Amino acid sequence: MTTGAPRKTRSDGERSRNAILDEAARLATVQGLSGLSLGRLADAVGMSKSGLFAHFGSKEDLQLATVESAVRVFDAHVIEPAASAPPGLARLRALVDAYLRYVETDVFPGGCFFAATLMELNMQPGPVRDRLVRFFGDWLQHLATIVREAQAAGEIDESEDPEQLAFELEAAFFLANGQFVVMRSPEPLERARRTIERRLAAAAPAAG
Amino acid sequence: MTTGAPRKTRSDGERSRNAILDEAARLATVQGLSGLSLGRLADAVGMSKSGLFAHFGSKEDLQLATVESAVRVFDAHVIEPAASAPPGLARLRALVDAYLRYVETDVFPGGCFFAATLMELNMQPGPVRDRLVRFFGDWLQHLATIVREAQAAGEIDESEDPEQLAFELEAAFFLANGQFVVMRSPEPLERARRTIERRLAAAAPAAG
Repeated sequence: MTTGAPRKTRSDGERSRNAILDEAARLATVQGLSGLSLGRLADAVGMSKSGLFAHFGSKEDLQLATVESAVRVFDAHVIEPAASAPPGLARLRALVDAYLRYVETDVFPGGCFFAATLMELNMQPGPVRDRLVRFFGDWLQHLATIVREAQAAGEIDESEDPEQLAFELEAAFFLANGQFVVMRSPEPLERARRTIERRLAAAAPAAG
Repeated sequence: MTTGAPRKTRSDGERSRNAILDEAARLATVQGLSGLSLGRLADAVGMSKSGLFAHFGSKEDLQLATVESAVRVFDAHVIEPAASAPPGLARLRALVDAYLRYVETDVFPGGCFFAATLMELNMQPGPVRDRLVRFFGDWLQHLATIVREAQAAGEIDESEDPEQLAFELEAAFFLANGQFVVMRSPEPLERARRTIERRLAAAAPAAG
């Protein structure tokens, strides 16, 4: 190592690794996950390239570690806040609020990490794309599960297909995120909210 | 949205330029518009880099010309087929069909050119991003115009906000495209169609 920095304890190293990956995930939403070279990241975090190389052996390892870091951020900002709401429509609405807030508050400067990187890598086979595809499938399943909980609570009609409803929720999220990044206005987020509220009203259980 | 360019006899140079740009637009949906170097494109079309340089002075000029080429493809596959349907719901449904067909038939190997490239360049200021943003705004306005025509024809309720409905249509398209590219299955396209048919049924004029 040629950083000239004093040797750090393991816990400092862990903290430093997490700080590097936070920055990497932020950078990836601006320049792309493919644009995430060790050199660029070294500039962004003020370390030497060889110092970074000690943390991450290859660009692909760095990309995979960056995705895992973004998964933790997404869990903390979107999944966990909704998980503390009671199952049913309340939890579904908490998830909608949490996702739209995650976009609006610039948790990542280029909007939702997963929307950005999956659209970037969808035609580039390999473990990074596979990981992103798996995340996206898990997310849609999570949405469908929360819809099923609302059905079990008698708050969404039994005739609704949870996977179809999950698609419609994610469609509103996906476009709201895409437009917010470009427009920097709350309008698309409000449109998404209106779309979803209307759809949930239509999905209310039939009387009787 | 239509090119307005009269069909005329083209020189070999124009034909060759168009063939190069077709390939460039296809490549851009796989490797990104940023990944579209003169060198890579030269390999793909079997020309020398200097030969390509004679057509396009800079990478940015090539990117802008590629976007215009993709606009013509989009017009031919999506806008024009719908324009020949009568105004109202028939034209709106023709547009939905045309868009989903444009995705499903791999007009571009990486799905909708504009979804791919706008998500790629949304954080990279410059004339290429500006052109893509303008296209996207025009497209949403086009959708809203077709909704207004259906309102004028008495086929969509007057109380519907055309811009909101345009957002909802595009949300279904945007996610259907994103998922189709990854899954290579018609399922997301069918989900989008179901979303839209249900939404149009809900938008039918109130009786009386």
